[in-house]
Amino acid sequence: MENEIIDLRSDTLTLPTPAMKNAMNNAVLGDDVYREDPTVNKLEEKVAAMFGMEASLFCPTGTMTNQLAIKVHTKPGDEVICDQLSHIYLYEGGGIAMNAFSSVRPLAGDYGKLNAALVKDAVNNPDDIHQPITKLVVLENTTNKGGGSIYNFDEIKKIKKICTDYGLILHLDGARLFNALTETSETPKDYGEVFDSISICLSKGLGCPVGSVLIGSSEFIKQARRSRKAMGGGWRQAGGLAAAGIYALDNHFPLLKEDHLRAKKVGNLLLANTDIIRLYPVETNIVIGELPEDIDAVTFVVIMKEKNILCSPFGKNLVRFVTHLDFTNSHLEILESRLKDLKIK
Amino acid sequence: MENEIIDLRSDTLTLPTPAMKNAMNNAVLGDDVYREDPTVNKLEEKVAAMFGMEASLFCPTGTMTNQLAIKVHTKPGDEVICDQLSHIYLYEGGGIAMNAFSSVRPLAGDYGKLNAALVKDAVNNPDDIHQPITKLVVLENTTNKGGGSIYNFDEIKKIKKICTDYGLILHLDGARLFNALTETSETPKDYGEVFDSISICLSKGLGCPVGSVLIGSSEFIKQARRSRKAMGGGWRQAGGLAAAGIYALDNHFPLLKEDHLRAKKVGNLLLANTDIIRLYPVETNIVIGELPEDIDAVTFVVIMKEKNILCSPFGKNLVRFVTHLDFTNSHLEILESRLKDLKIK
Amino acid sequence: MENEIIDLRSDTLTLPTPAMKNAMNNAVLGDDVYREDPTVNKLEEKVAAMFGMEASLFCPTGTMTNQLAIKVHTKPGDEVICDQLSHIYLYEGGGIAMNAFSSVRPLAGDYGKLNAALVKDAVNNPDDIHQPITKLVVLENTTNKGGGSIYNFDEIKKIKKICTDYGLILHLDGARLFNALTETSETPKDYGEVFDSISICLSKGLGCPVGSVLIGSSEFIKQARRSRKAMGGGWRQAGGLAAAGIYALDNHFPLLKEDHLRAKKVGNLLLANTDIIRLYPVETNIVIGELPEDIDAVTFVVIMKEKNILCSPFGKNLVRFVTHLDFTNSHLEILESRLKDLKIK
Amino acid sequence: MENEIIDLRSDTLTLPTPAMKNAMNNAVLGDDVYREDPTVNKLEEKVAAMFGMEASLFCPTGTMTNQLAIKVHTKPGDEVICDQLSHIYLYEGGGIAMNAFSSVRPLAGDYGKLNAALVKDAVNNPDDIHQPITKLVVLENTTNKGGGSIYNFDEIKKIKKICTDYGLILHLDGARLFNALTETSETPKDYGEVFDSISICLSKGLGCPVGSVLIGSSEFIKQARRSRKAMGGGWRQAGGLAAAGIYALDNHFPLLKEDHLRAKKVGNLLLANTDIIRLYPVETNIVIGELPEDIDAVTFVVIMKEKNILCSPFGKNLVRFVTHLDFTNSHLEILESRLKDLKIK
Repeated sequence: MENEIIDLRSDTLTLPTPAMKNAMNNAVLGDDVYREDPTVNKLEEKVAAMFGMEASLFCPTGTMTNQLAIKVHTKPGDEVICDQLSHIYLYEGGGIAMNAFSSVRPLAGDYGKLNAALVKDAVNNPDDIHQPITKLVVLENTTNKGGGSIYNFDEIKKIKKICTDYGLILHLDGARLFNALTETSETPKDYGEVFDSISICLSKGLGCPVGSVLIGSSEFIKQARRSRKAMGGGWRQAGGLAAAGIYALDNHFPLLKEDHLRAKKVGNLLLANTDIIRLYPVETNIVIGELPEDIDAVTFVVIMKEKNILCSPFGKNLVRFVTHLDFTNSHLEILESRLKDLKIK
Repeated sequence: MENEIIDLRSDTLTLPTPAMKNAMNNAVLGDDVYREDPTVNKLEEKVAAMFGMEASLFCPTGTMTNQLAIKVHTKPGDEVICDQLSHIYLYEGGGIAMNAFSSVRPLAGDYGKLNAALVKDAVNNPDDIHQPITKLVVLENTTNKGGGSIYNFDEIKKIKKICTDYGLILHLDGARLFNALTETSETPKDYGEVFDSISICLSKGLGCPVGSVLIGSSEFIKQARRSRKAMGGGWRQAGGLAAAGIYALDNHFPLLKEDHLRAKKVGNLLLANTDIIRLYPVETNIVIGELPEDIDAVTFVVIMKEKNILCSPFGKNLVRFVTHLDFTNSHLEILESRLKDLKIK
Repeated sequence: MENEIIDLRSDTLTLPTPAMKNAMNNAVLGDDVYREDPTVNKLEEKVAAMFGMEASLFCPTGTMTNQLAIKVHTKPGDEVICDQLSHIYLYEGGGIAMNAFSSVRPLAGDYGKLNAALVKDAVNNPDDIHQPITKLVVLENTTNKGGGSIYNFDEIKKIKKICTDYGLILHLDGARLFNALTETSETPKDYGEVFDSISICLSKGLGCPVGSVLIGSSEFIKQARRSRKAMGGGWRQAGGLAAAGIYALDNHFPLLKEDHLRAKKVGNLLLANTDIIRLYPVETNIVIGELPEDIDAVTFVVIMKEKNILCSPFGKNLVRFVTHLDFTNSHLEILESRLKDLKIK
Repeated sequence: MENEIIDLRSDTLTLPTPAMKNAMNNAVLGDDVYREDPTVNKLEEKVAAMFGMEASLFCPTGTMTNQLAIKVHTKPGDEVICDQLSHIYLYEGGGIAMNAFSSVRPLAGDYGKLNAALVKDAVNNPDDIHQPITKLVVLENTTNKGGGSIYNFDEIKKIKKICTDYGLILHLDGARLFNALTETSETPKDYGEVFDSISICLSKGLGCPVGSVLIGSSEFIKQARRSRKAMGGGWRQAGGLAAAGIYALDNHFPLLKEDHLRAKKVGNLLLANTDIIRLYPVETNIVIGELPEDIDAVTFVVIMKEKNILCSPFGKNLVRFVTHLDFTNSHLEILESRLKDLKIK
């Protein structure tokens, strides 16, 4: 126990539970390229129904579901509006340009969240041939780089209004949407009504080993399925992974609120015991701490690692801790005991 | 048994055996984006060593491993030489253009196989700015659309000589390379010496549910890993699928020769009992039969389906049958009994 | 006169005549990005009216007008059908892939000309997600690499029928369409009725220094204008060059028939006096001659050059001679005198 | 004179002078695709020598020269750093993504100018496969959207130092570099030493009808020439336009200082007589005026137009006036007389 590693680098790190492995092992399989994997089909139907949308597509990663959405919604020479902290802009390898040939307008929002006024100001004049055509707005909820921050749903509806007025498509990067749903009163269907497409991740807070689901209209998913093939995402007997997804939606979604409670506690411990001088508001399962100018994030991460506590540098003076299914209350106690006297200065 | 479906549409359709599922269930997992999935790492090391190459990368599909190879080896405006029947040209969604921005020169080879003279004639003059720069040659072994045809290794070495002379890169689409290895005296290392990169499929004859491996130099794999991320192939705890791959390489590779024997028998049965008038040479596990001008492939497939025999239309007057792990000698007997009196004319 | 170079490498080589230069010098200019160059506007209206189409766009090159057409008509992952000898495939730098992200299906036609049956057979199944979506057919008339060969207009109408049946768009690379029009009874409006878009070149047989025009519907040209800007073709005071175009359409078009007569004579002289053993049918202003296996085209070109006769190697054993505005009857006489005793063997 | 239009929308609007037209008319021509236009060759040599660089390439537009530079310097998945007001980002149709498949990092500089600290902070970690690889920095001097602002050359050298430290390429969008050179002590060769490539425009302050020149190493220009062909910029007898360029470099460059004087006077007149409440610093030939929140730029432009004064809306409350060769002192007097009593409020 003393040497046990407390790994808070990411909620992607979770391992499947015995019950989840059992579900995976018992899944009925088939070839998904032929649309014959019954478990994949079941997951896709379940998720589409959950969001009140027509169809969905099970893919290996959230980057793939986001990139497919951008690729299908845009044409070369279009422009995508997003927050400058968004995952699609910062962490998907320049895919907006490379996969969709679209320009990007990264805006300075609030903890990774856009608002309607920002979006409105960023829409290009469609008659000016010098400029790309604004086509797509992508929101991220919760925001990763913004510290797990949750959108106010009224603001989302205002942004939707701008999209309707200007003929823009609205996509949600919902990699951590279930964390937002846990803390707010909206349902998945509320999101399904507002967004043209949504991507969700099964391998983050929900604890699956692999997988993301893209949700939208039948026609949209049909086109995404075609593009998925060319991008190399047309896997075969994916039903074992789909079974994990079904299990997680039923059994792990309700557990997220505990991750959030533990995140708040982690934040308080960090603020009380380490050189971290300020926290981003801790709204879900992500804790971002700010270090003084003269303490480099990498240095801090190394010092923590010596105590068998793993976290991520997240900018020059920022560090990120993420709670997840494999971080329990007893891990929290271990963390507390190790954090004593950890100040550098 | 009477109603059991004999499914010879593809060798991608196989389901994992109990022993393979056991291996999957017991795999040690980790996050492969962090390079921490020990089973993925083990598979990648095993495959690289098997081919005597520096490194490898485990991906969801053969389309992804091929497309990554093309993308990494070329720049926009380069040209790829391949056979006009090749999978990368016909069945990867136009990915050569869409993923790699490269032109393609599809050549009329022999049952999907190029030869050195054809390649040499197709190399563009690098000083002519009207033409794309010939950069990459891709061979497929065995050839899918050519009926499982096997390259003569001497011809491959002659093609390699042309590549060396003209500064071209040589990639192997080895989706069914293990079928070729089963019938010839070369070893994987012989291939590793000749090719700059190789992709192999685990989910075809080897019987895994999902997966393909791209093999090459460390630098090449490093770049492929980066591109894989942007294409959405950077999956997380893929170790279960990797465990299936390790199991299959050890246990299923030796079984391919039986698929080949059964394929020959299937071919003979088809020729003797159906309207098929000619077979492509049956060299491995694929049987392509030619129908008379006035019998459409789709019609033939429907008639077979009524007998619970599934095969694929493969051109206007061509049909394909593929033997695989889930097609046993007893299935062969059922097939024989059902094929009686199946002639349309 | 004795040392005068007879330059038959291409009809792009012509220099503006004094009358054309006068027209250029007197052109009224303005900024075409603002749509305020009256001479550009006049040319664009003139050409659109000539073909009975809604609009046109004046561009620097035929490669740009073709590439714009392909880019506007297709989406990434679509497929373009063309002859394997076509300019868009062989001589536009791999632009189909690099500019339009589209796959290409180069077919083996007849002297660079497709026919309806070939096109029909090459249309992909739109429901098969493995394959790119066939979207566009491009014909070239006359064919450059096919030796100035002219399409039978009935065949074009049959191809159009296939396009209508399968929902395909039909573009004409009419770089040398005026040569075809000179020898056949169709009018530009006949072509305007059949094709969705047409590109014509002003700098080939028509003798302008620079320029090509893309013709189509208003909506198509609007989109092409936008893409032209991003590709760097949005020039400013292009009216001088446009004036050359207007002059050429009025004054040089009628002269093409003389180029064709001289081309026939050049062909006969070559066949009678040189090692050329066979000519492609000489239908317009291009003469392609075939050399024996053991005489390399480059060798032949060098020998001709020593006699101050310039022609182009056009394949391993093929050479091309092109007649044009600057090749007169007196040049023909010089050519005849120089061709005596030119046989290598 | 009373109805004469005072057109200050852009310095691209100038018409060639009689002397320039004479130079154009007398230019010796040839086919530039064959590298045989002597006047184009002369311009390219002259410009390369002027900047002390190896080679240059004459193109139809500044968008093409910039886009070629970005395309040649980067690979798909790389990232370009530029100011968020830069022309390559805002006004080239999303070409960074569509032509070069590169991501863009638009930074918030000062009047369109970056500084070394900003650039340094924006360089991605090359080992993080989530992020595009930072490859190219593009500066614009003078800045269009920043009001003709001039870089301090010491800051450019500091940025160069960062580029050297991090292995980045440095390109200059010098569309209005001659305006900067007019006001500072540096020579073109000073710029040639610091930048890997430079694009200059001939059709802005220099007064040519058409044209831009890309300058760099021989190898870079060789690759740019190839890409130019595929993008449709490989024009034929461009010597007439090149002659205008040569004339302008010799004769119009020295006149820019008068444009700058007149711009200062225009600025003062606008501030004194119109609703404009603030000017961007007027350093060269561009005057950007800021309107009160409640006066829309488009409204202001319409009111000016009624007085036969043309300017451009340049943001919600910004308007741009640009002085140029065709705006003389007598036009300035007309402007002054018309500006009386123009206040809306």
